[in-house]
Amino acid sequence: MTLTLSINDAQRLPLAPLAAPTRLLLGPGPSNAHPDVLAAMSQTPVGHLDPAFLQLMDEIQAQLRYVWQTENQLTIAVSGTGTAAMEATLANTVEPGDVVLVGVAGYFGNRLVDMAGRYGADVRSITKSWGQVFSLEELRTALETHRPAILALVHAETSTGARQPLEGVGDLCREFDCLLLLDTVTSLGGVPIFLDEWKVDLAYSCSQKGLGCSPGASPFTMGPRAITKMQQRKTKVANWYLDMNLLGKYWGSDRVYHHTAPINLYYGLREALRLIGEEGLANCWQRHQKNVEYLWQSLEEIGLTPHVEREFRLPTLTTVRIPEGVDGKAIARQLLNEHNIEVGGGLGELAGKVWRVGLMGYNSRPESVDRLVAALKQVLPQ
Amino acid sequence: MTLTLSINDAQRLPLAPLAAPTRLLLGPGPSNAHPDVLAAMSQTPVGHLDPAFLQLMDEIQAQLRYVWQTENQLTIAVSGTGTAAMEATLANTVEPGDVVLVGVAGYFGNRLVDMAGRYGADVRSITKSWGQVFSLEELRTALETHRPAILALVHAETSTGARQPLEGVGDLCREFDCLLLLDTVTSLGGVPIFLDEWKVDLAYSCSQKGLGCSPGASPFTMGPRAITKMQQRKTKVANWYLDMNLLGKYWGSDRVYHHTAPINLYYGLREALRLIGEEGLANCWQRHQKNVEYLWQSLEEIGLTPHVEREFRLPTLTTVRIPEGVDGKAIARQLLNEHNIEVGGGLGELAGKVWRVGLMGYNSRPESVDRLVAALKQVLPQ
Repeated sequence: MTLTLSINDAQRLPLAPLAAPTRLLLGPGPSNAHPDVLAAMSQTPVGHLDPAFLQLMDEIQAQLRYVWQTENQLTIAVSGTGTAAMEATLANTVEPGDVVLVGVAGYFGNRLVDMAGRYGADVRSITKSWGQVFSLEELRTALETHRPAILALVHAETSTGARQPLEGVGDLCREFDCLLLLDTVTSLGGVPIFLDEWKVDLAYSCSQKGLGCSPGASPFTMGPRAITKMQQRKTKVANWYLDMNLLGKYWGSDRVYHHTAPINLYYGLREALRLIGEEGLANCWQRHQKNVEYLWQSLEEIGLTPHVEREFRLPTLTTVRIPEGVDGKAIARQLLNEHNIEVGGGLGELAGKVWRVGLMGYNSRPESVDRLVAALKQVLPQ
Repeated sequence: MTLTLSINDAQRLPLAPLAAPTRLLLGPGPSNAHPDVLAAMSQTPVGHLDPAFLQLMDEIQAQLRYVWQTENQLTIAVSGTGTAAMEATLANTVEPGDVVLVGVAGYFGNRLVDMAGRYGADVRSITKSWGQVFSLEELRTALETHRPAILALVHAETSTGARQPLEGVGDLCREFDCLLLLDTVTSLGGVPIFLDEWKVDLAYSCSQKGLGCSPGASPFTMGPRAITKMQQRKTKVANWYLDMNLLGKYWGSDRVYHHTAPINLYYGLREALRLIGEEGLANCWQRHQKNVEYLWQSLEEIGLTPHVEREFRLPTLTTVRIPEGVDGKAIARQLLNEHNIEVGGGLGELAGKVWRVGLMGYNSRPESVDRLVAALKQVLPQ
């Protein structure tokens, strides 16, 4: 070991053990993980092919089907954040030249456009002002015009707080013989979703919002029509890590090794899903709705107005207009530094115009609202 | 909320809180995470743009440079497992038509071949029996023959337990004007690595082996020559999640949002790296070497032989020949079920021929060896 003589210590930092600040995370995500989730995550890991872990994977699959209300066999959690799950939907189904039509009314619609292009799609988009949603008639016209292989929509636009109604969209997609791909990152667990009734073919989400877990293991689901498209590919899926042909053999009965799963995150995800099962999905959705209505009322009492029309507001995330003359960034900084509360700023069209306030998963509680409003009263100019 | 009337409860499982079995993980990974790592991971998450988290990211970057012995600015942890970090090295540097030469002497060499092909590379390979390594002369001949843009080698082949010597390979790559890409998944933290002295341009690893963390946030580094190749691309990086142009703006001084990092895993990784800094890298390498020599000696005392020639054996992972007439799978199952010890089986050429025994990170301790050998004495036929 004479080699060790030449070790360079320049980068070695004299670090103290971690002491993370305790924040109340009321931004667009992550939210605070449920304490039981954090406790589950700190259990010692087992191997990724351990019978105990394989059973846990089965449990995660079943509970994900429950929260999404789907019978899709290929319903798993990918080993990455919501963005990886988003990429997985496109990577597996898009072949070079496929027309992909994206509804863009916010930041994450734009991300879908960028991503689909990287897989060789002929990307088309329809746009709306940030905070608005698409009508069924607008979608029909766009499908007639573009005749896409895939229509991608964002159910809950994290950048605007708007909820895209889905009733009838799936039937429209069948009529035009295209797949329906849905971003449910900010809706799963907190907003009513009926994936099968809505005839959604592909969907993805994240763990750290409505599910109340820590980020990093992200729900993904793929229905029979999407699987058929994948099976008919002429080219390999252009992404090894997210290739569902391979991942399906690990999550399915074959149990073929693909990658070393982030074991402890799956412990947390299983616990988060267990807690939703215990609460009941309807109760969970109702809790989110009730608490966000309390938020809206409380904000209005201190003179603050949500950006999105009431009918289309999300129960999980509210964009709040920054009053004229108020420095939104400075207020957010004060909330963080003086009150340990995180809220988000606006993105894109809404930069500087709104704060983003999330009440998701474990954080969807009246106490979160009370703490935020009390802090806002202190930091907002009188 | 009348919609909730139609909730389908068929998939809802009546789950009890998680009670994972306590295993001693002596397979090819994951290894047991250090208890302090698990404690750090259970702290409540902060936001991915919180000043406290940005500081933690800086600390992770510095400590990763230390354990890799590199000055590379673009040294980060990607939000996925080691396989995602592997894919990141190829996705960012390979353009369609590039010749990528891969040294294949095990399972992970083959994975590099498959992955590089998905990014449009003209993949060539040189092969060796599983458990052997490439000589400098063999590599020179291959470079002369194939004139690749990238030479990809596996420093520590997790499927065979062999250590590929790197001395002189970097100079060879400069001579042939190609990038050197190195898999250090089973070496980082446990095997001497001098990335800059070896003139390695791209490397990746994982968190759950030599670093003693839980899996899911994986070291990635890219030197100036690789960055130049990336910057000269004619096409976008064909992977959004792993695009270093975007990730570099989040990990660098711009702090542009890219994705929601798996906060709690980064807590764990920072703690794992802090512990190595505290121990000292030379001490950590020496500990791995000392304990594996104790393992080899102890195994030989009960009549078991390592598969790889001593000179090229890894300190982190040993392939052990299954004695004639012994059912290797049955023994591994007994170790797991009766002794809570996990060891790995063989893959590919070595399937059914070896067990894989890891002594990595927190598990590289004499007690691990003693417990394994005591259990083997009980389960092996006398």
